[in-house]
Amino acid sequence: MADKISMVVSEGTFDKAMMPLIMGQTAAAMGMEVHVFYTFFGTKLVTKKANPKLPGMWRLFTGMFRNRMKKVGTPGYMEFMKQTQDLGVNIYACSTTMGLMGVKNEDLLPGVKVLGAAAFLKLAAESKTTLFIG
Amino acid sequence: MADKISMVVSEGTFDKAMMPLIMGQTAAAMGMEVHVFYTFFGTKLVTKKANPKLPGMWRLFTGMFRNRMKKVGTPGYMEFMKQTQDLGVNIYACSTTMGLMGVKNEDLLPGVKVLGAAAFLKLAAESKTTLFIG
Amino acid sequence: MADKISMVVSEGTFDKAMMPLIMGQTAAAMGMEVHVFYTFFGTKLVTKKANPKLPGMWRLFTGMFRNRMKKVGTPGYMEFMKQTQDLGVNIYACSTTMGLMGVKNEDLLPGVKVLGAAAFLKLAAESKTTLFIG
Repeated sequence: MADKISMVVSEGTFDKAMMPLIMGQTAAAMGMEVHVFYTFFGTKLVTKKANPKLPGMWRLFTGMFRNRMKKVGTPGYMEFMKQTQDLGVNIYACSTTMGLMGVKNEDLLPGVKVLGAAAFLKLAAESKTTLFIG
Repeated sequence: MADKISMVVSEGTFDKAMMPLIMGQTAAAMGMEVHVFYTFFGTKLVTKKANPKLPGMWRLFTGMFRNRMKKVGTPGYMEFMKQTQDLGVNIYACSTTMGLMGVKNEDLLPGVKVLGAAAFLKLAAESKTTLFIG
Repeated sequence: MADKISMVVSEGTFDKAMMPLIMGQTAAAMGMEVHVFYTFFGTKLVTKKANPKLPGMWRLFTGMFRNRMKKVGTPGYMEFMKQTQDLGVNIYACSTTMGLMGVKNEDLLPGVKVLGAAAFLKLAAESKTTLFIG
């Protein structure tokens, strides 16, 4: 059975958006089973309107960061997310915070599953590594 | 022996305040032994004056978030913390940062224990899952 | 073989800068093998120009925090980092984000190794505890 890795993403900024995708694709390429759970501000990242920016005063530099990522071959956020899902990475929206964040089922990207905190904690307990990304 | 889960909370914002309580109550209901360690800005969350707000420009929306949580049956922060402790979740203040944050023993909520980094790392090493929340 | 602990640092603020050093020194003193991986905004913390400040409006209080740490015997950031390395803690800069953050090999502090995400995830999978610090 493949080693499991699980991640939580609770922030919606560009940096916190990229990290689970970079880590997720890397782990999937290493043969791991990957589970990423989006909660609180992270919930926005798995909706059709996702368009993450850098935090605070860094916000203005988001375009520069995007260009630099493009230069090293990283696609735009939406395509990067799609690629990650195509590699078999499991993407979940936290059912507890969807209402809180005003996110409805029909707002979610295709392939995103809705999951509760208990089901996620079970996945985390089975995982070799769990990363709480912001 | 029950599976252990441990968490660190280093931010004092409303979102980072709610997550260990939601996760902690869920894990306790699943029969896990739960340890939550509050450090740096998180230390304020285990004092009698705790009144967490959302971060940055989200601050103004704290009331709206609180109302939405109330609607789904989540109590106010102080009552939620008390409920969590009553479920057997262990709450610790980091001894190293209490002085740094200007938090004294008498400022702590009832039932909060003072713990050092070494003792926490020991608990983390024994845990199936460790989440560093912000 | 010694127990491993691994950490990720993705923020460059004073609080997030101190935590891996406090935790790292403590874990090393407990006989653990420690690995700290600096990525995104964290990458700045392992360069010769590192000079971390508190986040947002807390920035102005950085000096006060530094003085309070000095009073309890914690050295300044650069000396604290050097001490941590001398205790055998392994410090890595994330190769994927060095370009993104404009950090070159010659900018890195002595002793800092360059590591990719895959190599880090392998270390994390071997670790008893992994902390994602901001």
